[in-house]
Amino acid sequence: MADFTFAELTPTAFLRRSADVYAGRDAVVDGDLRLTYRELYDRCRALTGVLAGLGVDPGDRVAVLATNSHVLLEMHHAVPMRGAVLVPLNIRLSPEELSYILDHSGATLLVLSEEFAEVGARVAAEVGVPVLQAGPGSDYERLLADAEPAEVPCTDERGLLGINYTSGTTGRPKGVMTHHRGAYLQSLSLLVHSRMDQRTSYLWTVPMFHCNGWCLTWGVTAIGGLHVCLRKIDAEHIWALLREEGVTHFSAAPTVLTMVADAEGAAGPPLEHRVAVQTGGSPPSPTLLARMDRLGMDVTHLYGLTETFGPIGINEWQSQWDALDADEQAALRARQGVGNVIAEPLRVVDEHGADVPRDGATPGEIVARGNDVMLGYYRDDDATAAVTLDGWFRTGDLAVMHADGYLEITDRAKDVIITGGENVASVEVERVIDSHPDVVESAVVGAPDERWGEIPVAFVTVRAGSTVTADEIAAHVRAHLAGFKVPKQIHFTEIPKTSTGKIQKQALRQTVHESARSAG
Amino acid sequence: MADFTFAELTPTAFLRRSADVYAGRDAVVDGDLRLTYRELYDRCRALTGVLAGLGVDPGDRVAVLATNSHVLLEMHHAVPMRGAVLVPLNIRLSPEELSYILDHSGATLLVLSEEFAEVGARVAAEVGVPVLQAGPGSDYERLLADAEPAEVPCTDERGLLGINYTSGTTGRPKGVMTHHRGAYLQSLSLLVHSRMDQRTSYLWTVPMFHCNGWCLTWGVTAIGGLHVCLRKIDAEHIWALLREEGVTHFSAAPTVLTMVADAEGAAGPPLEHRVAVQTGGSPPSPTLLARMDRLGMDVTHLYGLTETFGPIGINEWQSQWDALDADEQAALRARQGVGNVIAEPLRVVDEHGADVPRDGATPGEIVARGNDVMLGYYRDDDATAAVTLDGWFRTGDLAVMHADGYLEITDRAKDVIITGGENVASVEVERVIDSHPDVVESAVVGAPDERWGEIPVAFVTVRAGSTVTADEIAAHVRAHLAGFKVPKQIHFTEIPKTSTGKIQKQALRQTVHESARSAG
Repeated sequence: MADFTFAELTPTAFLRRSADVYAGRDAVVDGDLRLTYRELYDRCRALTGVLAGLGVDPGDRVAVLATNSHVLLEMHHAVPMRGAVLVPLNIRLSPEELSYILDHSGATLLVLSEEFAEVGARVAAEVGVPVLQAGPGSDYERLLADAEPAEVPCTDERGLLGINYTSGTTGRPKGVMTHHRGAYLQSLSLLVHSRMDQRTSYLWTVPMFHCNGWCLTWGVTAIGGLHVCLRKIDAEHIWALLREEGVTHFSAAPTVLTMVADAEGAAGPPLEHRVAVQTGGSPPSPTLLARMDRLGMDVTHLYGLTETFGPIGINEWQSQWDALDADEQAALRARQGVGNVIAEPLRVVDEHGADVPRDGATPGEIVARGNDVMLGYYRDDDATAAVTLDGWFRTGDLAVMHADGYLEITDRAKDVIITGGENVASVEVERVIDSHPDVVESAVVGAPDERWGEIPVAFVTVRAGSTVTADEIAAHVRAHLAGFKVPKQIHFTEIPKTSTGKIQKQALRQTVHESARSAG
Repeated sequence: MADFTFAELTPTAFLRRSADVYAGRDAVVDGDLRLTYRELYDRCRALTGVLAGLGVDPGDRVAVLATNSHVLLEMHHAVPMRGAVLVPLNIRLSPEELSYILDHSGATLLVLSEEFAEVGARVAAEVGVPVLQAGPGSDYERLLADAEPAEVPCTDERGLLGINYTSGTTGRPKGVMTHHRGAYLQSLSLLVHSRMDQRTSYLWTVPMFHCNGWCLTWGVTAIGGLHVCLRKIDAEHIWALLREEGVTHFSAAPTVLTMVADAEGAAGPPLEHRVAVQTGGSPPSPTLLARMDRLGMDVTHLYGLTETFGPIGINEWQSQWDALDADEQAALRARQGVGNVIAEPLRVVDEHGADVPRDGATPGEIVARGNDVMLGYYRDDDATAAVTLDGWFRTGDLAVMHADGYLEITDRAKDVIITGGENVASVEVERVIDSHPDVVESAVVGAPDERWGEIPVAFVTVRAGSTVTADEIAAHVRAHLAGFKVPKQIHFTEIPKTSTGKIQKQALRQTVHESARSAG
């Protein structure tokens, strides 16, 4: 075999190419800052030198706590270009959770965008991790100006690219290990399905720290598109950018789409061209789809997890659906769909690992395997083993398989609530509630919610004579966990149990579903 | 590393997925025959059983002599699904050339579309290779109807997928070994750059036997597009299909584009939507680009070789070119461009392997490496070594590198003529001419030609007293080689030589260039 016939698949190749092919084209707009592809590449190359100067060696973990900014985008390229491992932190987490991840990942550096200067410094000091502060006039910019590149080529495409922490049933965040090959292929897959091109203007509504922005930090770069940064979800600002930056694509949970549709900006002049929107986390409702359509936006429903590099599944439109009425179309589009073009086929299996019939009725669990599935959980072989079934990855999502091969989620096997696109493990909330001195026990379930998809609801049994209030319980949770994990309703009650003493979560879920229905 | 995190990259995965996702959608139209994706997949699965029944084991070579038909498309999927190696034959070759390839590849089976029943049977008998004849009521259809699948999964993505024979400087066709990984990635690359989707209707103007139709036999399948077969290049028929099948994309050498533009069909009603056209082999002229534009066709100039899975390079449009006038745009689009999204950067190097300056003037040779470069030449390590330079593949194309990183071919280092998109090695034509009893020596060079890009021109020195005519020399060549290799002009003359007796090809080229200019 000739030695000219191979190159490692790594997403760092994309920026290098675009710096050459699209040198003078705008790569990033972040407020007043605009960078061309050549400038972005030069900064990222210099950043590899900054990292090296701060002692970051290949294989070291570099954590980043940053908004959707040029900083987080640059880290997505520069950290792997240094041969190091990117650990993007969820900015909504509590200091306690951030500390845990910094410690667990063994990060040797924490990079901060200006919004997190204070909390980042505090957490880093606690864990004993050095900090690199970004922002105008910051160390980040000062070091960048003088640094010589210290790139390290990828020598193993299946090697560790990043660790993305996600809520799990154990209640402690688990570190999803991604690899170069998967991110590379997933980037191409997103481009094929979204048909982005060099005229693409991509608005960063989805957090870059979530599955690395579904790999679009690299995908949009590969095609020479424009990254339009959005440091904060603000629906009016989104409308301003949609118009000013000629946005062609964005991605967001249905919750955010509802905010966009509700905003005053939606009443402005129509957009100049239709916008392609990718959504996931929960199915878009018929009402939302109809509203988005009227606003000039075409919504594609994607399905994925952090463990699958973001969207491993896609609800591919079928031309025979053109003839259906809006409600029928919406029902079909609510399905999570099929594996994407680079994925192995998604399956729905019973507890023995056998495929369920394609009857749209028999429940099973979605399992996945292939190049866009993680390497495993970082430093947690038990957790990896727990999600492994005969060489397949168990997603924890319960679904049915329809006759046309499109799967549809009906429930989640794992005790996880998805609220506004964020995962909440019931058990981690329960553990914090239970740590309150007045609490005997608690159970947390998801209740359907029009705005957030689901909200966490707590059932709490308190000690005799306790006068603790719901607000006090909520404040206790907020002191330890991210705000989105705080139960939106807290019921003081006895908790139903089976004869063996196991909490009957299903009964509680039924209660909250019924009360949501009667309220709706 | 968990075992759910990897799958071999093989283009056979695409048909399997599309059979599921686009089951009922039309996959192929070939005259009166229409196949859905499910039907195409079922036929290809059955074909693996037919191949097995005929003794084709994994690793065996299966040759195909077929027009752009469902047969050749099916073989592109079924042969690798059987774990065997596809050897698509150029239908324009002479029986002598076909025999050589059948023999050299060690093919264990030759599959024929109906057009080649006679010549195929004759050649196969000569080499002693069994034949499978396709066509209505044929063995192919009869066996297919009863066969049980005998698929063999790909266990090495870098393993041999096919052997595509191409003219080389040695004068004997060389077998370019392609691999699964390269074809998979190149397919995705073509989709990203062409922005095909499931509504794509792809007209097969480019031969599927040429670099496996630039990997689009698999690429169009991956996206669930329609393969519109075209068994013969006929410009009026092309126009009929453009209209009847709602063609959105096709690929062809400039020669074919000129035929399309010249056809009566071009004067018909305008097409309903713009058509994306990919061209390569020689640069499209400004006149041609303007004509295509008026016909509703957007031309992209690609660059590649059989050794690079077809188009490794692309002339990517730059938005700053929008403002230029048509002549300036055409001059820029005549450049071969940059590496595609999955390619390593194309380089232009001097004889020591160092990059030439980006000055648009210093000549060098284009070199390539990466996942879309061949494994090497089949059973010809010397030829592979001859095109290897420090781990890079020498294309034999001489070019300059412009300041913007776009390369432009100025000449060919190898003595190869490209006529109507087909490669002709001068030496193989010279060898045949020299075998004529009246000939002393000959030299063949390419002359510029508006229709064919280049045409072969022969300079021949005959023995004293010979009365051989140009027509007789041409007939002699035609008896041994493909028709497109027959010199279009034959000059009886002394051949200029250096003091050491080496033929001065460059002087001959200058002669034909000057005469083409004065004729133009």
